[in-house]
Amino acid sequence: FVNGKFCKDPKLANAEDFFYSGLNIPRNTSNPVGSTVTPVNVAQILGLNTLGISIVRIDYAPYGGLNPPHTHPRATEILVVLEGTLYVGFVTSNTDNRLITKVLNPGDVFVFPVGLIHFQFNIGNTKAVAFAGLSSQNPGVITIANAVFGSNPPINPDVLTKAFQLDKNIVTYLQSKFWWDNN
Amino acid sequence: FVNGKFCKDPKLANAEDFFYSGLNIPRNTSNPVGSTVTPVNVAQILGLNTLGISIVRIDYAPYGGLNPPHTHPRATEILVVLEGTLYVGFVTSNTDNRLITKVLNPGDVFVFPVGLIHFQFNIGNTKAVAFAGLSSQNPGVITIANAVFGSNPPINPDVLTKAFQLDKNIVTYLQSKFWWDNN
Amino acid sequence: FVNGKFCKDPKLANAEDFFYSGLNIPRNTSNPVGSTVTPVNVAQILGLNTLGISIVRIDYAPYGGLNPPHTHPRATEILVVLEGTLYVGFVTSNTDNRLITKVLNPGDVFVFPVGLIHFQFNIGNTKAVAFAGLSSQNPGVITIANAVFGSNPPINPDVLTKAFQLDKNIVTYLQSKFWWDNN
Amino acid sequence: FVNGKFCKDPKLANAEDFFYSGLNIPRNTSNPVGSTVTPVNVAQILGLNTLGISIVRIDYAPYGGLNPPHTHPRATEILVVLEGTLYVGFVTSNTDNRLITKVLNPGDVFVFPVGLIHFQFNIGNTKAVAFAGLSSQNPGVITIANAVFGSNPPINPDVLTKAFQLDKNIVTYLQSKFWWDNN
Amino acid sequence: FVNGKFCKDPKLANAEDFFYSGLNIPRNTSNPVGSTVTPVNVAQILGLNTLGISIVRIDYAPYGGLNPPHTHPRATEILVVLEGTLYVGFVTSNTDNRLITKVLNPGDVFVFPVGLIHFQFNIGNTKAVAFAGLSSQNPGVITIANAVFGSNPPINPDVLTKAFQLDKNIVTYLQSKFWWDNN
Amino acid sequence: FVNGKFCKDPKLANAEDFFYSGLNIPRNTSNPVGSTVTPVNVAQILGLNTLGISIVRIDYAPYGGLNPPHTHPRATEILVVLEGTLYVGFVTSNTDNRLITKVLNPGDVFVFPVGLIHFQFNIGNTKAVAFAGLSSQNPGVITIANAVFGSNPPINPDVLTKAFQLDKNIVTYLQSKFWWDNN
Repeated sequence: FVNGKFCKDPKLANAEDFFYSGLNIPRNTSNPVGSTVTPVNVAQILGLNTLGISIVRIDYAPYGGLNPPHTHPRATEILVVLEGTLYVGFVTSNTDNRLITKVLNPGDVFVFPVGLIHFQFNIGNTKAVAFAGLSSQNPGVITIANAVFGSNPPINPDVLTKAFQLDKNIVTYLQSKFWWDNN
Repeated sequence: FVNGKFCKDPKLANAEDFFYSGLNIPRNTSNPVGSTVTPVNVAQILGLNTLGISIVRIDYAPYGGLNPPHTHPRATEILVVLEGTLYVGFVTSNTDNRLITKVLNPGDVFVFPVGLIHFQFNIGNTKAVAFAGLSSQNPGVITIANAVFGSNPPINPDVLTKAFQLDKNIVTYLQSKFWWDNN
Repeated sequence: FVNGKFCKDPKLANAEDFFYSGLNIPRNTSNPVGSTVTPVNVAQILGLNTLGISIVRIDYAPYGGLNPPHTHPRATEILVVLEGTLYVGFVTSNTDNRLITKVLNPGDVFVFPVGLIHFQFNIGNTKAVAFAGLSSQNPGVITIANAVFGSNPPINPDVLTKAFQLDKNIVTYLQSKFWWDNN
Repeated sequence: FVNGKFCKDPKLANAEDFFYSGLNIPRNTSNPVGSTVTPVNVAQILGLNTLGISIVRIDYAPYGGLNPPHTHPRATEILVVLEGTLYVGFVTSNTDNRLITKVLNPGDVFVFPVGLIHFQFNIGNTKAVAFAGLSSQNPGVITIANAVFGSNPPINPDVLTKAFQLDKNIVTYLQSKFWWDNN
Repeated sequence: FVNGKFCKDPKLANAEDFFYSGLNIPRNTSNPVGSTVTPVNVAQILGLNTLGISIVRIDYAPYGGLNPPHTHPRATEILVVLEGTLYVGFVTSNTDNRLITKVLNPGDVFVFPVGLIHFQFNIGNTKAVAFAGLSSQNPGVITIANAVFGSNPPINPDVLTKAFQLDKNIVTYLQSKFWWDNN
Repeated sequence: FVNGKFCKDPKLANAEDFFYSGLNIPRNTSNPVGSTVTPVNVAQILGLNTLGISIVRIDYAPYGGLNPPHTHPRATEILVVLEGTLYVGFVTSNTDNRLITKVLNPGDVFVFPVGLIHFQFNIGNTKAVAFAGLSSQNPGVITIANAVFGSNPPINPDVLTKAFQLDKNIVTYLQSKFWWDNN
């Protein structure tokens, strides 16, 4: 066991421990955010343990498919667009909170630095597809809206009312909603 | 220069390079969130460069003083309460989004793991004070509401409307507001 | 300057510092090894400095396009096939020197652990294309044949004669050849 | 198990795994060195494992309370004074052995870099209290006098006689003494 | 268990866990490469686990004893010559493939940076002996010829024919040979 | 500049940047401790910068040559004896302060874990010589007696009187002495 994962004796490791299949398959994006992330990390490829890298495929529905604002607590992401047109961005940390954005077309590459809030939004009329590398075998993902308004149990609404400058009834309404997890 | 900071020749370093004064002084918490963070990191103590630690003092206004949901992209935080009563919590990453909370009284210690969204809320009738250690000389802080609704320039409101399940006019109203930075 | 690279003041960083364009363009593979690697690392995207990740596109000529045996001294590689059929493999370290191989088709993913000798070989009748993530912003590449037989100046041929169990005239013949660098 | 500590399944972690109570309680300092260290590290808070931080409370008796010269082999320390007046210092490594000192009052902060010999000495007429953050969940502590003269079994006295330029009978007398551990 | 090795309770560790004997004994170098490496790493000294260092003794037969081209995927090596005269070198990574060499006599020290292909060759008329420190408790070693031509099972000869610009019958002849492992 | 050291453009690096000469030369040990350490680290070999390793030669005078109790704040040490007989040891950290010792003869290897106080003492009738690898290019050394009693300026003698259970006049006498640095 290393990092809480079972580690094979290297003499017994075989090709299956370093292999995953199916990233060519388009995924269904008929969900509330219009996107689906297909992760390939240490949970899918045992041999990635301790090696510090993983990848994902992301499918976006035509106009409006959104990989909503989220962070990876343990990884920088480098994304390359295969199909479609994405408006992407990240926000720098306090006190500037600068938004850095770019419209990406096929073959374009963009970097989202570790821990920063970022998103991708399909602004084209066709579906979009991207691959992304992440600098951890277990990058983690925190979808901001889900963590803030969809936690289990809910955060005290007084906290969110004050933090987000929202009416308390809007906060409790948001907390009653279903928050789709696209991962 | 190391990490973009000027590094003195060790033979020339003196006590002032390892010293900071004033963490005993209560800070004004008359601001929209009712809290003030006083950081002591590499920006205040040059000698911390490369050493992987910093501290902060946090003052909270009586009932309702809030250190709003935020993350530190490069640090775990260990907080100890000096005065008052705080409701504190953090949310685990996807797909669980479990909320872990505790009510803390003086002498209580709580840990917020690196990169996770966390907050402290003064639920007592008196002001509260806490000290916290952070596992980086430059931990960074991302206040969620400020980064999402107060970025400069603003995020395309279609992104936030979809991500937060809010009416677009609420989003644009939030984006027009002033977002106080308590750091 | 960090890691010998110029680092912008974060307040001055802009989207161009995190962006690269053109990974959708097929590259010419009419060269002695029949493959071309297009790197996107800190040399192409300045904003990757310190972030621990990079990507490459690899184009392979129809049957026989080869990314020859090489190592990355500072990175693990995770490769995903976009087009074509690749026979890929890596060799474990002493004393086993086990060869781990797999035939990959579109959507298949394979991992080459840090520092191990690995290769990809197009065994299909059409060109092949792959993307790969690497766990360093500056992974380095050592093409085995080029380093051993094509170094500048050449290694003493007695060393190579003994190490590779070759006739000395074969060694000196190999050392007189041109060794194409597909990176 | 990670780092030799039992790690809970994250889905089963709860608030108690990140919590400790009692750092507000003054500790008895009636002991030979006149100080008591109350550690809060991975031994007290299981959830700190791998997170790289811990804290301590230190109580000092009125004039003369001493946290004697010691090192933390795995951590830098950042100390903040809550009460009293401390004369603190550390010694740089060879060949300079420069002593860097400061007199600290409430609210003053001082940094002791990783691995260096340091101490705090209460030079006021009242008790003193400090909190300190350490950049490891398991910083370790080596009290110099205890390790040198109080080891079990004792170091060959010829070694200490020569190293400390002391009469051998003083060395053996010191080795026969009781060495209080204030941790 | 840490890193897949059994870790003793520190209270039970004893001197044998930090001790190894016999590096003064000349080793037999009557083998195809004319050299023998005697490693002292975490496999020989359990107490080295996590400590990031190991050493080796290397014996070289008179004129022609060769430690053949190899890499350590996880360690830099610093070598000091005790007896004899060695021609040593390493090759930098692409695209330069510069060969850096030196002739070393007793007392000379040379550094082989992590991951680079390097070798030592006895050019004197007497046996040679060296000690080397490596910056990992488990540095690994990849002997280039053994990994390329002696892997188990063999690499597809078409790959090696193309990569090394050799006739296929030479490749298959090399693959049929016995490759001595001097470690 | 990396780590405060000048870094050459890799294309300009040459063999001299990885080379040091003279570790075969016996050093004079006619000094108060009867030993001399000859370091080969980044101060002697510029090319070691960032590579995490260094070596030293240590010469010990016949019976009584002592490398006095010291720590390396940033390195584990692995020592091999070339000549003579050494009594060596280290002390574990609080609260056990266990002494782990061994008598070493030529070819014996011993490990001193990072940050722990350790020493070597020549108990033979002839001079002794050892080589040691250290797991840092800049390991640092803190000779305990020199740092405690020989700092510049001196530590307040009240601190040392209490910490070491010595009469104050012995402390001030020790502080007036000359403390030889054998590095």
